[in-house]
Amino acid sequence: MHRFNRRKFLQFTGMAGTSLLLPGNGTAAPVPSFEFDEIGLSKWELETPSLCLELEVMESNLKKVHQNLQGTGIGVRPHIKTHKTPALARMQLEAGAVGVCAAKLSESEAMLENGIPNVLMTGVNVSPGKIKKAMDLRKKHPGFIQAVDNPENAADLQEAAKAAGIIAEVVVDLDVINRSGVPTGKPALALAQQVDRSPNLHFMGILAYDGGAQHVKGYGPRKARTERTFEPVVATYESLIISGLNVEIFSGAGTGTYDMMGIVPGFTDVQVGSYLFMDAQYMAIGSKENEALYDDFDPSLTVMTTVINTNHPNRLVTDSGAKAFTINKPSGIVIGEPDFTYNAGSDEYGTVTYNQANREYRVGDKLEVIVPHCDPVVNLYDRIYGIRRGKVETILPVLARGMSR
Amino acid sequence: MHRFNRRKFLQFTGMAGTSLLLPGNGTAAPVPSFEFDEIGLSKWELETPSLCLELEVMESNLKKVHQNLQGTGIGVRPHIKTHKTPALARMQLEAGAVGVCAAKLSESEAMLENGIPNVLMTGVNVSPGKIKKAMDLRKKHPGFIQAVDNPENAADLQEAAKAAGIIAEVVVDLDVINRSGVPTGKPALALAQQVDRSPNLHFMGILAYDGGAQHVKGYGPRKARTERTFEPVVATYESLIISGLNVEIFSGAGTGTYDMMGIVPGFTDVQVGSYLFMDAQYMAIGSKENEALYDDFDPSLTVMTTVINTNHPNRLVTDSGAKAFTINKPSGIVIGEPDFTYNAGSDEYGTVTYNQANREYRVGDKLEVIVPHCDPVVNLYDRIYGIRRGKVETILPVLARGMSR
Ligand SMILES: Cc1ncc(COP(=O)(O)O)c(C=O)c1O
Ligand SMILES: Cc1ncc(COP(=O)(O)O)c(C=O)c1O
Repeated sequence: MHRFNRRKFLQFTGMAGTSLLLPGNGTAAPVPSFEFDEIGLSKWELETPSLCLELEVMESNLKKVHQNLQGTGIGVRPHIKTHKTPALARMQLEAGAVGVCAAKLSESEAMLENGIPNVLMTGVNVSPGKIKKAMDLRKKHPGFIQAVDNPENAADLQEAAKAAGIIAEVVVDLDVINRSGVPTGKPALALAQQVDRSPNLHFMGILAYDGGAQHVKGYGPRKARTERTFEPVVATYESLIISGLNVEIFSGAGTGTYDMMGIVPGFTDVQVGSYLFMDAQYMAIGSKENEALYDDFDPSLTVMTTVINTNHPNRLVTDSGAKAFTINKPSGIVIGEPDFTYNAGSDEYGTVTYNQANREYRVGDKLEVIVPHCDPVVNLYDRIYGIRRGKVETILPVLARGMSR
Repeated sequence: MHRFNRRKFLQFTGMAGTSLLLPGNGTAAPVPSFEFDEIGLSKWELETPSLCLELEVMESNLKKVHQNLQGTGIGVRPHIKTHKTPALARMQLEAGAVGVCAAKLSESEAMLENGIPNVLMTGVNVSPGKIKKAMDLRKKHPGFIQAVDNPENAADLQEAAKAAGIIAEVVVDLDVINRSGVPTGKPALALAQQVDRSPNLHFMGILAYDGGAQHVKGYGPRKARTERTFEPVVATYESLIISGLNVEIFSGAGTGTYDMMGIVPGFTDVQVGSYLFMDAQYMAIGSKENEALYDDFDPSLTVMTTVINTNHPNRLVTDSGAKAFTINKPSGIVIGEPDFTYNAGSDEYGTVTYNQANREYRVGDKLEVIVPHCDPVVNLYDRIYGIRRGKVETILPVLARGMSR
């Protein structure tokens, strides 16, 4: 049953030659045990729920973001909070990304320790333990860039970098959506200058992620909102330049605004995450050419689920609920059945309701469902089945799954 | 940094002497790598987010359910979908449970292969692969009981049990909430008789889980609803008895209705899950003595989180969002700060808003937060920190985390 096969194992890792074992740091999870025999199965034969990635669609998304930005001078620094999978980060680098972003320290570590050399951590580390660990990581991996958003924290980073005997690369996170970040204007300039003056820190630039704009419906309103939000950010950027600071990195944006950043002077790269997978939330926002459907990128990520009960008319019960889909809205989209509404409100069960179905469904039939919101869905699974021409070509371990520290 | 220490390792497993390694079955995850040095830390020293369990409160809940049911003749068969942790299932058995329930096959396997001998799987298996695997599991573990809810599936189970050379224990799941289950009345009787006639199946009884009643606010309305819902279930039970079937198991109920089942003739055991941990959703439903707060059990499960930004008045930003809490409502409850509202809508960030705080908060301060809905929160974490008198006493691996198959 568990015949080991080296060729399959390499396909399964999706990253031959790269260490799969993370250091036991209290946040890292080892590779789950997989069914090697699943390689080669039809995706319709997989036990469910299982998370599937249409490789051709994903590869097309991978290229499109670069194509669509060609000639703008803006680079791509994909955010791996979406996929948490070193093998996918590797593909993003190979497609031309300038590096990747990670949200958390444990996520950054999972990337750096699995062959991804350039990681910009967009979140801050404030506990002494995390700050020390971040500096140890930076010592080992020179491509690790850290964020800071307040003066005390900058002083702590300076001290820790000094203790570690390194000069650590630091970006200043600007407050755009009242979440993380230092207030734009004078406090931001002062913090950037403080970092620049700190002997063991190397000021690299600024982050300005406009989370609130990403899902605004309609290209026009989204762009208007982005322009408005970026006004104080641009003023801050200009004050940094005037003060003589070297702003190598000016990063921000996501899948909803990646193609609008030409309006922002000095902007260097977009932190797109969801573009690789897409989801029901992003499909609903509309694009420049298509107000009804955001189709710059195509949905590549689905959950295969099985019908387990058909006793009630206009209703199917499946084996995939909140633990397979989360309860994000809009809910999952059943491929091929435009009239189906998928409710994942039960922990273990999904309920499909409909007026019209394109076929008759029996217990044991499978449904393929586009996920509601890709990031938290991926975070529920230990592996992603890479599908090509309907078959499992590779199994990608989600090595940073659960790494929220 | 990773000094290995056998005593700590045993504390960490929470189940000395039991195999921690699950067979590589495509659904099982191995034990994540832990920070052994976290044993003995104050819970306030843990890096965050981390999932913490107050052991004394949990142990009190563990006992209370049995105390509160004393003299009713009703047993306890806890549902491990809530905790997914063999070490906790073991404690439930030691406290007097008649066995445990599991929702999924992979979850059942994680329990059976880690020392939990009696597992009733409340969900059905409908794919040939899962049915075969279920019978293999039953062959190895005689305490495994399976559910069925339609005649074709019963025929498939018979065939698979025969092929495996066993007589498999089966319960019939009744449709109570239009989710899983065979319709009550004649279809249920016919299915029970079919199972009873099947040479390789042993009819054990019925399941009737009233999910819709569990969170009805107010003891009176909850009881009225339970009585109404159980009318057709009781009629079905009586028809089974009249037809001469031996109903050894008549199981159902959850934390919201566990103490109301005396009204149901023949009822044998309650499938309580959340009682062990409690959560914001259950606290809000009210109990017999306390309409405002359901206090039969006390909240034992919390997430420790760190304040990372205090730039805005009446607002704290933390490092724990939807990937640490889910987006279930009511949202998490910050212990000691009744006026705080915790919003976990961002994947990686939490936002606390308040008019009144009992102290001043600075970056780096920690908050302890009761979880919104325990089951899907536990499913986000690889380990639970068992806390006693403020310190980490043990680390419990959530071995069935992510096992939704
Ligand atoms: C800081 C930051 N940058 C980039 C992104 C990527 O956004 P998207 O998935 O919308 O492309 C996120 C997503 O939440 C983020 O938090
Ligand atoms: C079949 C079944 N039984 C029991 C329970 C346990 O319920 P609770 O956590 O409300 O006690 C659940 C929870 O969803 C369930 O699905």
